[in-house]
Amino acid sequence: MGDCTAVTPLLDLAGVFVFALSGALEGVRKRFDVVGMVVLAFFTAVGGGVMRDLFIGVQPAAFRDAGYLLVPVAATVIAFFWHRQVERAMPGVLVFDAAGLGLFCAVGTTKALYYGLAPMHAVFLGVCTAVGGGVIRDVLSGQRPTLLYDRQLYAVPAMLGSTAMAVLYTLGVRGFAATLSSAVLAFTLRILAMRYGWRAPLARGISGST
Amino acid sequence: MGDCTAVTPLLDLAGVFVFALSGALEGVRKRFDVVGMVVLAFFTAVGGGVMRDLFIGVQPAAFRDAGYLLVPVAATVIAFFWHRQVERAMPGVLVFDAAGLGLFCAVGTTKALYYGLAPMHAVFLGVCTAVGGGVIRDVLSGQRPTLLYDRQLYAVPAMLGSTAMAVLYTLGVRGFAATLSSAVLAFTLRILAMRYGWRAPLARGISGST
Amino acid sequence: MGDCTAVTPLLDLAGVFVFALSGALEGVRKRFDVVGMVVLAFFTAVGGGVMRDLFIGVQPAAFRDAGYLLVPVAATVIAFFWHRQVERAMPGVLVFDAAGLGLFCAVGTTKALYYGLAPMHAVFLGVCTAVGGGVIRDVLSGQRPTLLYDRQLYAVPAMLGSTAMAVLYTLGVRGFAATLSSAVLAFTLRILAMRYGWRAPLARGISGST
Repeated sequence: MGDCTAVTPLLDLAGVFVFALSGALEGVRKRFDVVGMVVLAFFTAVGGGVMRDLFIGVQPAAFRDAGYLLVPVAATVIAFFWHRQVERAMPGVLVFDAAGLGLFCAVGTTKALYYGLAPMHAVFLGVCTAVGGGVIRDVLSGQRPTLLYDRQLYAVPAMLGSTAMAVLYTLGVRGFAATLSSAVLAFTLRILAMRYGWRAPLARGISGST
Repeated sequence: MGDCTAVTPLLDLAGVFVFALSGALEGVRKRFDVVGMVVLAFFTAVGGGVMRDLFIGVQPAAFRDAGYLLVPVAATVIAFFWHRQVERAMPGVLVFDAAGLGLFCAVGTTKALYYGLAPMHAVFLGVCTAVGGGVIRDVLSGQRPTLLYDRQLYAVPAMLGSTAMAVLYTLGVRGFAATLSSAVLAFTLRILAMRYGWRAPLARGISGST
Repeated sequence: MGDCTAVTPLLDLAGVFVFALSGALEGVRKRFDVVGMVVLAFFTAVGGGVMRDLFIGVQPAAFRDAGYLLVPVAATVIAFFWHRQVERAMPGVLVFDAAGLGLFCAVGTTKALYYGLAPMHAVFLGVCTAVGGGVIRDVLSGQRPTLLYDRQLYAVPAMLGSTAMAVLYTLGVRGFAATLSSAVLAFTLRILAMRYGWRAPLARGISGST
């Protein structure tokens, strides 16, 4: 959702595509019909950006640009016919998901700063952009949001990427280079967290079985 | 929510009433108290329109017009005292629900076009107006949204009605006649889908038991 | 969220703190990780106000003021280390929760009236401000919203406090005294309802086991 940033729209739509694919696959797993698949694809992909835009107080970009609607539809078609093949490629999909996470947190933070929000709130909205769609996907598919309990570092890399973006922006480093390096930071941390099993802590004295 | 269309407010409030009744009855079935009933009645009836207005970027009509609050309250009172009688009349209620579906998709699409959205997004928001309240009702009452898995053609008739509306509007055919014929199209398709058991497809290779 | 009222920001943030604490504790009970705790703390505390602001059509105050972000973070830190102690103090916490309920309904109603909404809608949004965060907390933590079924008088005291506020405001009695007396009314009714077990009715003929 980079309408105010230097991220090429192509990169942005790549993030939308990966998130939409994860939503459509969740629909297949839950035996939803094609309507359920496209709803999950759309809201997983753009739900975080829609939340961010509503919280900033502007009309959500997702309802102005054809790509935000057509890309989730395309992801649904792919999942409809080739979900087995995509599931088998999941480790690869997770890498793309991490790329989407990095990109969305950087773009979301930039947009919030551009509209005059304080850095602290911009970081929060960057994280919302990156993780909000997944939370909506989980609520719609009738399960507790994975984000809240599974202890994988998912929001935390997004928060660090958003923070980097806010610092760079405040220092006057804007545009493509700043967005890309913040996105790469979040992406790298997310990949490392997956590889080494880094985990978010539970409250003191709470044992780990969910 | 026809504040910018030629649909008579009476028709619009009839749609609100039927949707509110379905929300209040869901509250009775789940043994919710009167607070739960009125919350479900309200958000089932106006939730889709509220989503549409937030996505368009205008203040939701539901918070400007007394009818959108009073009609759900009236539906709750009726469900509170006479839910058995209304349940027994359910097949009849489903016809009214189909009428609400048709009306809401046509009105929602028109409003989005009126505010300058592209036809594709207007169709999407027309469907949101028609089906969004039911999704909110299901999420609030703690179940997976029926829309996503039950394979009944519910969103699809709304999509075709919205598409007809967008085509007519783009061709310059606006006002009551266009709204009514789009609504009748969606209504008819919905009734036929119920009567002949037309079903939305599952992803390839997924069998049908939910 | 008293940016247009005479409520001292300190009182307002006290309400945010208590609601945030209840959200963070719910996260501990559900064995969510620290990310889940802070998400629940934030949305429980400010979710109702964010809904109100979106429904009024203004940018949510929660994304302009540092306190609305820092106070939920502080509540999460406290719940993370001392949840056992806070749980043991729950009866005391419920008194604070009732104070938050009273304050939020009065402040929410005032803000809606200030932005020109009709008294009826302002009362509705006052109740949303007070109870909306708890509903979001329950949906996110994967359970049916307590508000809808548990028959405790929670929304009803908020509605009466909001109504008192709307009446006073319409009569020209605005500012701190009006807000405080409406808040005290809702608070007192809530405390009395807890003490004497007053319950909201179920629909006619529905028996009470949930």
